[in-house]
Parts: sequence; structure tokens; C-alpha cells
Amino acid sequence: MGDIGAYSSKISPPSLAVVFEQLGSPDEVTRIIELPPVEIKENEVCVKMLASPINPADINMIQGVYAKNVPLPAVGGQEGVGEVHAFGSAVQGLSLGDWVIPSPPSDSGTWQTYLVKEKSAWHKINKNVPLDLASAIHVNPLTALVLLDDFAILNPGDTIVQNGSTSIVGQCIIQLAKLRGVHSINIIRDRAESDAVKERLMKLGADKVCTEGELQVKHVKGLLGALPEPTLGFNCVGGNSATSVLKFLRQGGTMVTYGGMSKEPVTVSTSALIFKDLTLRGFWLENMMMTLKRTQDCRVLIDYLLSLMQEGKLKYETELVPFGKFSVALDKALGKVGSHPKQILKFGGP
Amino acid sequence: MGDIGAYSSKISPPSLAVVFEQLGSPDEVTRIIELPPVEIKENEVCVKMLASPINPADINMIQGVYAKNVPLPAVGGQEGVGEVHAFGSAVQGLSLGDWVIPSPPSDSGTWQTYLVKEKSAWHKINKNVPLDLASAIHVNPLTALVLLDDFAILNPGDTIVQNGSTSIVGQCIIQLAKLRGVHSINIIRDRAESDAVKERLMKLGADKVCTEGELQVKHVKGLLGALPEPTLGFNCVGGNSATSVLKFLRQGGTMVTYGGMSKEPVTVSTSALIFKDLTLRGFWLENMMMTLKRTQDCRVLIDYLLSLMQEGKLKYETELVPFGKFSVALDKALGKVGSHPKQILKFGGP
Repeated sequence: MGDIGAYSSKISPPSLAVVFEQLGSPDEVTRIIELPPVEIKENEVCVKMLASPINPADINMIQGVYAKNVPLPAVGGQEGVGEVHAFGSAVQGLSLGDWVIPSPPSDSGTWQTYLVKEKSAWHKINKNVPLDLASAIHVNPLTALVLLDDFAILNPGDTIVQNGSTSIVGQCIIQLAKLRGVHSINIIRDRAESDAVKERLMKLGADKVCTEGELQVKHVKGLLGALPEPTLGFNCVGGNSATSVLKFLRQGGTMVTYGGMSKEPVTVSTSALIFKDLTLRGFWLENMMMTLKRTQDCRVLIDYLLSLMQEGKLKYETELVPFGKFSVALDKALGKVGSHPKQILKFGGP
Repeated sequence: MGDIGAYSSKISPPSLAVVFEQLGSPDEVTRIIELPPVEIKENEVCVKMLASPINPADINMIQGVYAKNVPLPAVGGQEGVGEVHAFGSAVQGLSLGDWVIPSPPSDSGTWQTYLVKEKSAWHKINKNVPLDLASAIHVNPLTALVLLDDFAILNPGDTIVQNGSTSIVGQCIIQLAKLRGVHSINIIRDRAESDAVKERLMKLGADKVCTEGELQVKHVKGLLGALPEPTLGFNCVGGNSATSVLKFLRQGGTMVTYGGMSKEPVTVSTSALIFKDLTLRGFWLENMMMTLKRTQDCRVLIDYLLSLMQEGKLKYETELVPFGKFSVALDKALGKVGSHPKQILKFGGP
């Protein structure tokens, strides 16, 4: 554009950011530094971040074990919620103070106080959703929704089975399935407090919850009770736990793998593939959102999920941690100090 | 029917048959006995069998390790070709001497000299196809055709990859792929005469042939050369050999398992499922032909395959063995005496 207005540019505030200059263990390679102000171009929006979660994908990206790498140095974090702080002259449809989320999730950059991106990268959301839930909606709840929608036609009365059921995706799957009248069988790992976990998941809407250990001694049929055999299974663990999911599936069923927490591969017998006609698929949100059309579809889904959260129909535990205590939240997210709810960085607060 | 004509019934000749009264090792539980004549009902056809193959599925059924069992005692054999010997009063569209095959394959019964079945169970075929090829068309060549057709859209210039490439299904896949301009990468097991096998498969139309051992030392990319990465892979072995097929597949590719010769399961890494977006499926001809509509579709495909055989475009090695020497053919089919071509029982000959 030859328009001289494009040069009378606005400038962002300096931004405090979690930066990593090399790949490695996040508690060793990240540090918080102040990034200098940047120009806000005519089609760009400067957002003051309000909250951003620490997701496993963020950690894996810093470790360099994610399927794609960002150019270094980089700022951590891929999703979050912020408010519009300033925007360029060509930006329309946004007002100062509006809440926005990067959608699709940004490759990097949400762990900082101010973030400048093109207007098209931001999706405006309703303000009456809990901040913590809105900040983490894109990676986990959306995965749960798409897992339920994209791999089989589920009718009310059908059953799904999943492992890793206490994860946020797992908790969302339970609630979203329940909302459409779909039963859920939920496998959890053996742990001391398994009764309390069972109760918690049943309260969310789970039909059955069983530990991996129980599955070694009880027959799948007995655990199913009166529920129909599952059409669809979800695996985020691998190894024996994935095999348990496969055992539950009915003839012609599909198992979708979206994680591998045990670091063990998925093993399936030839007879299960041939005679039980099982299908194994994989799901990666990133793949799904490669096209712009899909991005628009995603935003419709995001709005649906936000409306459920607003009505109290979709929730999960989080722990809000002031940004200044990033290293504490990181240690918890890394599992160094026991089991904790999803860690959400809160900016600008006390 | 109150029609008295229905009772003036025709009778089949006595039938020499390979019978098993219990499940077990085929060379121990089968014997050839003469079955008494049976009535040919008004809608039935009595067929004088001409040839019938010994397929692995036949052996597994006698061993009791197949996914379904037949009521005992039973006659072995599920496919073959015969000529019309007699038929009931209500049968139309067949003449004495016509060649027919049971389609879909019969649960049991083709290893005998005379076989009576309802007219709808028989499919009339052209007589100018080699007897040995026609007798074994349903289980192996049809599997090859459906594997190529039903799991992905293959365009000329695309590539497929398979293991167990020397099997009849494997040989048919090579030829059928070649006919539609699709390249094939063929994995064979390590053996002394691998150079001769490679030459034989290249002559059939294979683009590349490599042994499992070569795959341990060479990179998949190097073996691919200028060929595009395969869209579709076929696995009839399992274990490491299945993993090799998966390695060749391109992003978003599908591997179809139709056998498990190594008796090892299929193992796939979480990252291949998620980041490479692979799909694993299974194929069992029996499943596919459960509906009548599908049976009619199959007969169209069978006729297409027979036309290719008639033109010399689809072939594989067989060994015709007189029915009286069943036990010799069985030993060869069981792999007791080295490697042999497909054993085809020939009835009524010298």
C-alpha cells in the first residue's frame, strides 16, 4: 500500500516472555525476559494476554520431540486468551478490551504479556466464560469434540471406550458423550486413590470406570454389563492400555490414537484386524486445521464448546498460577511434584 | 408345493469326498470316503467337480483355528470349478456341461466328486479359462482385486507396497496394479534363491522387490528411488514385516492386513498414527460378501478376473494333482516337503 498511513505505525508495549533459545528440558532452557516493543502493522492486533495453559505439546516442542519445530529463539505457549490492547488501521470488527484467542493455536508465543498477530489469527469470544477454561479450549476440549464427531456416527444409546480418562480430553469426552446420550467406558491407570477418581468421573457423567488392573482379571463382557459394545475407542496411552481399548470394541469398531503417554507402541493382533474388522486411526489437531476452511469450521466448534462452558455443562479442574511463578507451574506440569490439575498461567494479576 | 412332480426327484451319483469328523491336523483327521447319493431338489444343481484348490483357509478350518466353524462331520474345500451334471425341475439358465463355481465360496464341500447345491449358490463361467486358475479364483485373485479397489483411490503413477509378495494374492496384486499403471514395491522374506524370486516377480510387473534383510540395512527412501511414496500397503505377514510396510507409506497412507503368516501381531508407533496420520485396517473376504448385493458385485468382479486370465494378463503357478493323490497334495500344501506352487486337486482324471 502506498498509503502513508501505514507508516504512522503503532507500537506494542514491551512484553515479558518465556523464551527458549535452544531445545532441551524446559526447566533448563526457558527463562523470562523482556522483549522490546514491536510495530503493530495495519492489519495486526496487539493482545494483552490474560491466561495461557501449559500443555504437553508446549513442553514437547521445547524438548524438541514434537513433530514440528519452531525457529529459535522462540516464546513458549500455543493457546490462551487475551484482551485487545491496540490494532492497526485496517482492522475491523474488534474493539479495545474484546476477548480473543489465537485460532488455530499459534505455533508459539502465548506465554508472554503482549502478543501481536494478524487480525485473521485471532478469534473473538464471549466474555462470560471462565477465563481458565477459555484459555485452554483449543487444544483439549476441541480434540475431545472432534474425536467424538469425525471418526464414526454415534447415536444416542451407543457406547465409546477410552483410556487416560482423567486427562482433560478424557473428562471432556465423558461430558460431551453424556450430552448426546452416548455411554462412556473409562479406563484409568491403577493408583492408590482410584475410588475417589472413579467417583469424580462418574459425577462428570461416566457410565463405567475401571482400572487397568481390574481389566486383567475381569472379562470385558462382565464390565460392559447391559451397555452395547463400543463403536469407537480413544487411546492416549499405548501399550497394554491400548490393547484394553481394542478388546472392548465391537465388530467393525474404530480406535483413534491421539497420544502415547506410556511411550509404548500400539499392538493389534492379525485376527482382530481381519476377523473383528477393526480400524486403527490417528488424530492430530494440527493436521486437521491445515486448511483455512477447517479453521473456520473449528471456530464454530470453539463457540459451541464455549457456550457449553458458559452453561456449566463442560468443565474440568484447573489451577491458575501467576505468570511470575512460571517455574512453579512448569514443575507441576512436568509432573515433578506429584499430580496436579492443568496449570494455567495468569497474566497481570497479583 | 403340492405339485407331485417335486417328489419325482432326481438323485446325485455317490460322491467320493475328503471328510473330517473332528477338528485337528488335516493329515490326521481327514479321510476319503464315498458319500451316498442325495436327492436333487427342484431348485438344486448337481455339479461334477473338475478342480478345487487347497487354500490355507481350508486347512485352518479343519484345524479349528478359523474364525468360523462348520458343523461336523464336514467335507473340506471352499472353492473350485465343476460342470453341471443334473438339476431340478425349477432350475433355469443352466445347461448340462456348463462350468460353474460356488460363489460366494461354499463353507465346505468342494473336495468331492459330486456336489449338490441350490442354483443361486452357483455362478456360471466361461469355459475358455485355464481350469486351474478358474478353480482358485474366488479366494485369492478376488482378494487382490478388492484390496486394490476398496481401501484407497489409486491413480496411474501411484505406488503400493506389500509383503508376502510371492503368495498368489501378492502375485495378483503385482499384475493387477501393473494393468492400471500403479507401481508396486514388493517385500519378500530372506531366502537362498531370492535373486530368482526377484526376477520372477519383476517379470510379472513388479517395480521393486526387496528382502526383509535388505530393509534392515537400506533406507526406505533409497529403495523407493524415483517412485512416489505408497498410498496403500498390504500386509499378510505381521511383526517386523508389517512394520516395514508401514515405513514405506506416505503421510495419510493406509495399511490393510489380510493375513498373519508370521503369527506375530502388528505393531505401530503412536507417532506414526498421529503425526503420519496412518490408518490400519483389516480385510476378510467373508465379511465383504455377507450381503447378497455384495455377492452379485463379486460375480461381476469374478467375470472381470476370468477375462484377464483368458487374455493371459493374470496368472500364477499351480500344480494340478489327481484327487486320488490328495494326501500328497495336502502334505505339499502344509509345507511339509518344501515350497510348492498352489496345489489344485483335479477330479475325474487319470
